[in-house]
Amino acid sequence: MHYARFRDPAGSVRNGTFDPDAETVSFGGASYEVEDSDIDVLPPCEPSKIVCVGRNYADHAEEMGSDVPDRPLLFLKPPNALAAHGDTVTAPADKERIDWEAELAVVIDNQCRNVDAADAMDVVAGFTCMNDLSNREDQRQEQNWVRGKAFDNAAPLGPCVATPEEVPDDAAVRLRVNGETKQDGSRAQFIFDVPTLIEEITAYLTLEPGDVIATGTPEGVGALADGDSVEIEVEGVGTLEHDVVVP
Amino acid sequence: MHYARFRDPAGSVRNGTFDPDAETVSFGGASYEVEDSDIDVLPPCEPSKIVCVGRNYADHAEEMGSDVPDRPLLFLKPPNALAAHGDTVTAPADKERIDWEAELAVVIDNQCRNVDAADAMDVVAGFTCMNDLSNREDQRQEQNWVRGKAFDNAAPLGPCVATPEEVPDDAAVRLRVNGETKQDGSRAQFIFDVPTLIEEITAYLTLEPGDVIATGTPEGVGALADGDSVEIEVEGVGTLEHDVVVP
Repeated sequence: MHYARFRDPAGSVRNGTFDPDAETVSFGGASYEVEDSDIDVLPPCEPSKIVCVGRNYADHAEEMGSDVPDRPLLFLKPPNALAAHGDTVTAPADKERIDWEAELAVVIDNQCRNVDAADAMDVVAGFTCMNDLSNREDQRQEQNWVRGKAFDNAAPLGPCVATPEEVPDDAAVRLRVNGETKQDGSRAQFIFDVPTLIEEITAYLTLEPGDVIATGTPEGVGALADGDSVEIEVEGVGTLEHDVVVP
Repeated sequence: MHYARFRDPAGSVRNGTFDPDAETVSFGGASYEVEDSDIDVLPPCEPSKIVCVGRNYADHAEEMGSDVPDRPLLFLKPPNALAAHGDTVTAPADKERIDWEAELAVVIDNQCRNVDAADAMDVVAGFTCMNDLSNREDQRQEQNWVRGKAFDNAAPLGPCVATPEEVPDDAAVRLRVNGETKQDGSRAQFIFDVPTLIEEITAYLTLEPGDVIATGTPEGVGALADGDSVEIEVEGVGTLEHDVVVP
């Protein structure tokens, strides 16, 4: 199953079913085209925090000139970072370089702490797509990546949550800019798999329903230009699309 | 004026007035002792994020062997980090050193972005006390201080919000452990004052009502022992008290 949150034509927020092939959302017997201008697709969950993982693909660590970490490199994006499928997101102004980073994102189902990896899939609602937008100029200068990674709209998320059985263990994670493929990795390449990430994070932090874990990006990151259109596809989930303004 | 959130004897959450001298909270004509076991004082606001500032007192930067930064060093604590006045907080287990850090915390009143320093006090609801609990063992090893600073209960906050006119420009920021003074600084020592912090943060991140900015700690940080009682006093606000379990 696939679920999407959207604002219906009356302005009410609904959690409906999502059909990735027909590109429709349905709730209470009514069905709408995702592209219908009378509705707005919203981020598919309401995280209290997004826990992000850096360097979780060996090929991306290499392209960034970084070592593969011996435990997950964690950082945070707060709720102000959210943006939705179909949005035009505005990057911080006058920065040297705003990068894309396609990621498979895990959506948490239950409040949880100290979860064993063996039980971790019990707390997972499903998977979605995220762009871990990165302001490299500030990121390079910061101890903690707040200006670099936590700015408004630094986390486009969606279009839907796919339940776990929809997403294969080797699901492709792809990104296209203006139709051209820039990243093409797979969940099978993760250095730390989803259960390991959940065990490690919940050893320190309670996760809440709707919280998100962003699992890192494969090689092929690069700089966005003003007006670019971005597509992030996770096999079994669907495709998150957004445009960017780079002032 | 001083305000405190609390759970009343019927279990309802109330935002009442707080009397720091009498140590009472009042709502709807009923008044309770803060120590009354029939009520629970809660964190005085519900932040979507806590934006923290590192090294904002030159004397603390020096004791940590760090340079004074040329712009605010920012990091994040998510809502799972909250704890309240009167709580017993449990630190992560088997860590070398869990430190106290007394801070004056700013509570935001209005949703805001791109605020000029000259207008910044218009978005401030008031001030409270925070302990920026720090797990130094992980902090030292991390690029971003997630295990080090964002663990559950890493941000005891309270007991109340004092409106800005209650808190002098040179308000004392003090910390006592088991009654012994360990930190004794002043808001007048800030490298970056509150309006400057708000301008810098909102150049990147939208702040929401109830969001918190923690303004850094003066010299005198040190390690907590199991069973310690901590008091954090900000002049004009009151005193936040909590105990710690250091497993």
